[in-house]
Amino acid sequence: MDKLICIPDFEQAASKILTSNAYEYYKSGADDESTLSDNKQAYQRWLIKPRVLRDVSSRKLVSTVLDGKVNFPVGVSPSAMQKLAHPEGELGMVRAVEQSGSIYILSTNSTCSIEEVAKAAPAARKWFQLYVFKDRSVSVGLVKRAEAAGFEALVLTVDAPLFGRRRANIRNRFALPSHLKLANFPSEGFNTSDKGSALSNLDKIMDQSVTWDDFKWLQSITKLPIVLKGIMSPEDAKMALAYGANAIFVSNHGGRQLDTVFATLDALPAIVKEVAGRCDVYVDGGISTGSDVFKALALGATMVFIGRPALWGLSVSGQVGAKRVLEILRDELDLTMALSGISDVKEIDSQYVIRSSLL
Amino acid sequence: MDKLICIPDFEQAASKILTSNAYEYYKSGADDESTLSDNKQAYQRWLIKPRVLRDVSSRKLVSTVLDGKVNFPVGVSPSAMQKLAHPEGELGMVRAVEQSGSIYILSTNSTCSIEEVAKAAPAARKWFQLYVFKDRSVSVGLVKRAEAAGFEALVLTVDAPLFGRRRANIRNRFALPSHLKLANFPSEGFNTSDKGSALSNLDKIMDQSVTWDDFKWLQSITKLPIVLKGIMSPEDAKMALAYGANAIFVSNHGGRQLDTVFATLDALPAIVKEVAGRCDVYVDGGISTGSDVFKALALGATMVFIGRPALWGLSVSGQVGAKRVLEILRDELDLTMALSGISDVKEIDSQYVIRSSLL
Amino acid sequence: MDKLICIPDFEQAASKILTSNAYEYYKSGADDESTLSDNKQAYQRWLIKPRVLRDVSSRKLVSTVLDGKVNFPVGVSPSAMQKLAHPEGELGMVRAVEQSGSIYILSTNSTCSIEEVAKAAPAARKWFQLYVFKDRSVSVGLVKRAEAAGFEALVLTVDAPLFGRRRANIRNRFALPSHLKLANFPSEGFNTSDKGSALSNLDKIMDQSVTWDDFKWLQSITKLPIVLKGIMSPEDAKMALAYGANAIFVSNHGGRQLDTVFATLDALPAIVKEVAGRCDVYVDGGISTGSDVFKALALGATMVFIGRPALWGLSVSGQVGAKRVLEILRDELDLTMALSGISDVKEIDSQYVIRSSLL
Amino acid sequence: MDKLICIPDFEQAASKILTSNAYEYYKSGADDESTLSDNKQAYQRWLIKPRVLRDVSSRKLVSTVLDGKVNFPVGVSPSAMQKLAHPEGELGMVRAVEQSGSIYILSTNSTCSIEEVAKAAPAARKWFQLYVFKDRSVSVGLVKRAEAAGFEALVLTVDAPLFGRRRANIRNRFALPSHLKLANFPSEGFNTSDKGSALSNLDKIMDQSVTWDDFKWLQSITKLPIVLKGIMSPEDAKMALAYGANAIFVSNHGGRQLDTVFATLDALPAIVKEVAGRCDVYVDGGISTGSDVFKALALGATMVFIGRPALWGLSVSGQVGAKRVLEILRDELDLTMALSGISDVKEIDSQYVIRSSLL
Ligand SMILES: Cc1cc2nc3c(=O)[nH]c(=O)nc-3n(C[C@H](O)[C@H](O)[C@H](O)COP(=O)(O)O)c2cc1C
Ligand SMILES: Cc1cc2nc3c(=O)[nH]c(=O)nc-3n(C[C@H](O)[C@H](O)[C@H](O)COP(=O)(O)O)c2cc1C
Ligand SMILES: Cc1cc2nc3c(=O)[nH]c(=O)nc-3n(C[C@H](O)[C@H](O)[C@H](O)COP(=O)(O)O)c2cc1C
Ligand SMILES: Cc1cc2nc3c(=O)[nH]c(=O)nc-3n(C[C@H](O)[C@H](O)[C@H](O)COP(=O)(O)O)c2cc1C
Repeated sequence: MDKLICIPDFEQAASKILTSNAYEYYKSGADDESTLSDNKQAYQRWLIKPRVLRDVSSRKLVSTVLDGKVNFPVGVSPSAMQKLAHPEGELGMVRAVEQSGSIYILSTNSTCSIEEVAKAAPAARKWFQLYVFKDRSVSVGLVKRAEAAGFEALVLTVDAPLFGRRRANIRNRFALPSHLKLANFPSEGFNTSDKGSALSNLDKIMDQSVTWDDFKWLQSITKLPIVLKGIMSPEDAKMALAYGANAIFVSNHGGRQLDTVFATLDALPAIVKEVAGRCDVYVDGGISTGSDVFKALALGATMVFIGRPALWGLSVSGQVGAKRVLEILRDELDLTMALSGISDVKEIDSQYVIRSSLL
Repeated sequence: MDKLICIPDFEQAASKILTSNAYEYYKSGADDESTLSDNKQAYQRWLIKPRVLRDVSSRKLVSTVLDGKVNFPVGVSPSAMQKLAHPEGELGMVRAVEQSGSIYILSTNSTCSIEEVAKAAPAARKWFQLYVFKDRSVSVGLVKRAEAAGFEALVLTVDAPLFGRRRANIRNRFALPSHLKLANFPSEGFNTSDKGSALSNLDKIMDQSVTWDDFKWLQSITKLPIVLKGIMSPEDAKMALAYGANAIFVSNHGGRQLDTVFATLDALPAIVKEVAGRCDVYVDGGISTGSDVFKALALGATMVFIGRPALWGLSVSGQVGAKRVLEILRDELDLTMALSGISDVKEIDSQYVIRSSLL
Repeated sequence: MDKLICIPDFEQAASKILTSNAYEYYKSGADDESTLSDNKQAYQRWLIKPRVLRDVSSRKLVSTVLDGKVNFPVGVSPSAMQKLAHPEGELGMVRAVEQSGSIYILSTNSTCSIEEVAKAAPAARKWFQLYVFKDRSVSVGLVKRAEAAGFEALVLTVDAPLFGRRRANIRNRFALPSHLKLANFPSEGFNTSDKGSALSNLDKIMDQSVTWDDFKWLQSITKLPIVLKGIMSPEDAKMALAYGANAIFVSNHGGRQLDTVFATLDALPAIVKEVAGRCDVYVDGGISTGSDVFKALALGATMVFIGRPALWGLSVSGQVGAKRVLEILRDELDLTMALSGISDVKEIDSQYVIRSSLL
Repeated sequence: MDKLICIPDFEQAASKILTSNAYEYYKSGADDESTLSDNKQAYQRWLIKPRVLRDVSSRKLVSTVLDGKVNFPVGVSPSAMQKLAHPEGELGMVRAVEQSGSIYILSTNSTCSIEEVAKAAPAARKWFQLYVFKDRSVSVGLVKRAEAAGFEALVLTVDAPLFGRRRANIRNRFALPSHLKLANFPSEGFNTSDKGSALSNLDKIMDQSVTWDDFKWLQSITKLPIVLKGIMSPEDAKMALAYGANAIFVSNHGGRQLDTVFATLDALPAIVKEVAGRCDVYVDGGISTGSDVFKALALGATMVFIGRPALWGLSVSGQVGAKRVLEILRDELDLTMALSGISDVKEIDSQYVIRSSLL
């Protein structure tokens, strides 16, 4: 693993270690995968404008996110079924985050249970990602368990009333291997390893009628702050604020849902403007270097999250690999700051970036 | 065929099944094929802006087109000689449309006759595509037969006074195989299987002097509504309305006529603006996913049509294949709507899309 | 040759027939060949906007150029040493033009003499391209001979005070094969077949101090109209008019002189605007289809010329090949007109084209 | 070497001669190498607008830079460890510059000492590039030695408080071969040939807290003019002038430091505008043809410098190769001037270039 010095190295290594079933599941995006690649390209459309002759001998990356501290503003996005990557699964991932001092978001569709994750990394900041099910008692149950297990916040994913068409998964009839299961659910209804069933099964039990009223209902059954994940327009950011969302998470699900939606970085500025500092704004999608993190922060994100990069790390060597991925991004962000003339992550703002088309 | 899950899969399968003569004839565009590829690329230049937390548990794709109902707004463009694709030819195609509840446009240059097509799918909505011949009595005959056979509308193609130079066809001296014929014509003059003759022969008998006055003449000999296919400018859309066209069909003949004309999607907005709701506007060219359909509707098209994708389906397995292609586009459109926060196809409008260069 | 149906076909065939020495000499551009490729790409940046339902049953391509008639507005640019392409050399080329009814421009550096060319095609419209030599008597001699031989105009090339660095030529030390010679000159000083000498020798005898005053001098020694070839800015077009140039020829020498100068098509509009109809404006560079010709005319060119395409035709089969190339461009232009709703070449104007970036 | 006729030829030849360790060290940029390639591409985004019929029979390339003469405005940027390229190392390079009549900037991290370089080329114009070390006495020592050895100016590099992450170097654990050393330092602390140590070692002893105040301190200990190398914003150019910098050097360290910073050519115009003629402005990064030099001058640079191209020349055949590289750029610049209608390098200004996006 010592030879892996940047995120693309980890992806390459993971692609060799994982079964093609798992690798395709992680890597793929919806339909033609236009958004998947645009998420990355968007970062190339913004360039850094550095300042010089500033004292950058010591840098601070510590930041405040949802009223708590992170050692550096790069967290791990919720991704389903992490045991597909490595036997340590969600436990390895959350421990990597614990060691790094960042934030871990546990997916509803995890292969370790809420309680196992909580126990594995008691000191880690943990949020729980929620899908709303037709049977509301299922969601209520999950919320109560997350609260009880010490999760700090709920992340309601709003971009997936149905699952996107990821062609690779349909082609290889993606299914959970029989030795794994969705650990937060009883076997019936949710768990099956029939070929091709993994997602279509979920589609059947998830509620496609969730609206802002349901968001109010969710607020009514929990005291945890709620982050709305999957906001892509200033109009919805406005609604989110009006309905009392505690934070807005700009995401297109890593290009896995609606294809040809625009890149998250391109969605960010208008949303940040709409929010005008009234709550945190997070972003994920396509981040793979420290300069990407820098640009997202410069355009107003409070913190960024990574999906696939963390999975590549986990695939390569469990907790150790995931931690290394986070470290690389932290180090690259640190260096980017130094070379841009910035010594505190909070100073990063829009004067340090410029859109290439405006040059 | 079960393994074919998107339109490109069907094209690939078709390319293996068809003779190269037929495949080249279907696939090719005029000259350098710039417009052929730009038709597709234009859809990449528009991106979707989704809304969230809306009830999308049930979606309506039903729409009203030329005063009649379609189950979903994706029809089949007229394309010549469908028996080249599959022995079922036009009959397979029209039955696929009948089952899907969409619209079928029969080409003048079909390998099954008007009457055969009518009989094969009595319940299908059918329009007849017309070329005007030097010998006007030929056109009159076709119009009368289409009326008698229960076709609902005429589609006058205006972008082909002469045929474009499709190099592949010239190179392989494209001709109808001797067992096929243009079924709407007597053998003489029209039908020949001399090498290289298929199109040049038509060129000779088609009238290159057709003007707006001839359009008036056509109106005078039929009570059927007339759609003008091949309008690419707001100026001509204005003329069309002034002359009483019943609908405008934005098309560049799938890039087979004038090369380096702009993409149909790029022509659409100005025409929609000019028309201002006074008649239906259709568009074809380059559509291969549900999100493409979504974008065309968002930019003001009443309905879209597909040329080659339906031919790939027909090639792969006749009626069943063509129907599957239509289903895939319907399902993808349905999913795109759900993931954009829309539950009725009529709600799709320009607020849901943005041109990438404006981001 | 029957299988060659478009200009790229001719280039490919020529590349197989010619020695690499000759092929490289014809094909190459200066330095990184950026302008060479941009000349072509510029035509992709303009798109055609067609009109429909117009009587295009008969088309007129005849045009008036420098007060004389051409059957269609595509002439042959001056290119040196045409015997490198085919034993018929300049004689084959001028005869092709004679048959086509266009214009032939003979290069100063031809491998057949002024008199031979005149005799070979007495009915062809012929112009003589002139370089000014340090020894003015050489230029005077050429002018007098061109006049005597019935050439109609002089074309003074102003973009080549020195020759551009065409790397391929330097690498293969381009030289005229020993059986060929620059036929308008005595052997001494001008003719040598030392390796690498072909152009550097010319550089030594050509006058690099030619200014507008020398243009006046040239006017004073001839009654022939003078075309200035190599104008790339409206500022120089203005000078040309002030100094009494009879026509302006927008050219960057096919990308063989100054690399990274902009494409000729991109230079054209501003020059046409400056000239405002006061004289003819010609353009060459990168034209390889009838739609290219259409676009140049739409942007205000009176006529276009082709360099390499004619050489490919000549290479493939002498006069017959060159004639075929001209015919293909004429036919493609004719078809482009028909499909754009135009029946007289004089009607082509800027309303029929649009810059793609403005869509 | 006679076969090498342009800069890319030299790079290719060097890539075959050098060890991969050395070649990778020279060639690579930071992280994804976006800026490395954008530096070059930026030159393609500007095009030349030539003028014609001007007397260009004799051209002057002589220019005045920092109050002294250069034969042509292309100098050699400081680059570390030139003995890696060729045994002659910095001595070969400085002699090449001496013969060419340009300017040589010696890197702090050279493999020949200040005194050796001075002695090798007494007639060359020589500047000394400075890094500030934690131990200020080291920097003071270097300054004094440079003054004593007849260096004319100091070049303070401000874009490298830490070294960028050049992945190739990390991967092959770049280190100075044991027979070479950083000749300006004693062995201890600075010199080590431990694998992977070459740069990380430097990182430890370089001062990352250098500010504008330290620049003032530097001014206080020397009478030499000071050039600030690594300015990329008009804001810092303004500071530089306010603090009395003698010249501004627009550089991003050849894309080796902060990746995704914009190209130097894109940074130049705003800085030139800010400076408004109050001091010299230099630029380096990505220059590889005479037309690149022309464009940088046209956008306001007083002079340009080259990093890697000179290293390729040195690699291929020491002093002779480096000199040839400089000659090629001079000759290409000379020809570009002639073909643009310019006979004195001082006439080159913004009217001769245009940004391609504005065409
Ligand atoms: C394999 C995989 C599974 C995912 N599962 C979930 C999930 O269960 N819930 C969710 O809200 N997002 C899920 N996502 C989306 C991620 O949270 C995140 O938005 C996305 O991966 C960010 O893009 P990136 O992978 O380019 O960093 C998943 C993403 C991947 C790649
Ligand atoms: C093989 C083929 C034959 C065609 N024949 C006709 C025709 O007879 N009449 C007509 O109006 N359009 C014809 N077209 C054009 C189509 O109606 C339609 O405009 C075009 O195919 C749409 O582009 P698409 O193939 O990218 O969907 C034909 C197209 C193809 C590909
Ligand atoms: C092989 C070759 C030789 C040329 N010789 C001359 C010449 O002697 N005089 C001249 O004015 N232009 C010369 N040109 C430039 C052409 O006149 C013309 O401007 C150019 O070829 C047009 O570009 P195209 O080749 O892309 O059509 C030459 C071009 C080529 C390709
Ligand atoms: C191998 C190498 C070593 C370098 N070492 C130094 C250095 O010691 N000090 C410095 O200021 N710049 C250094 N640079 C940056 C160069 O001075 C210059 O800014 C850069 O090479 C210009 O880009 P170019 O190589 O594309 O011409 C180095 C560059 C290279 C390629």
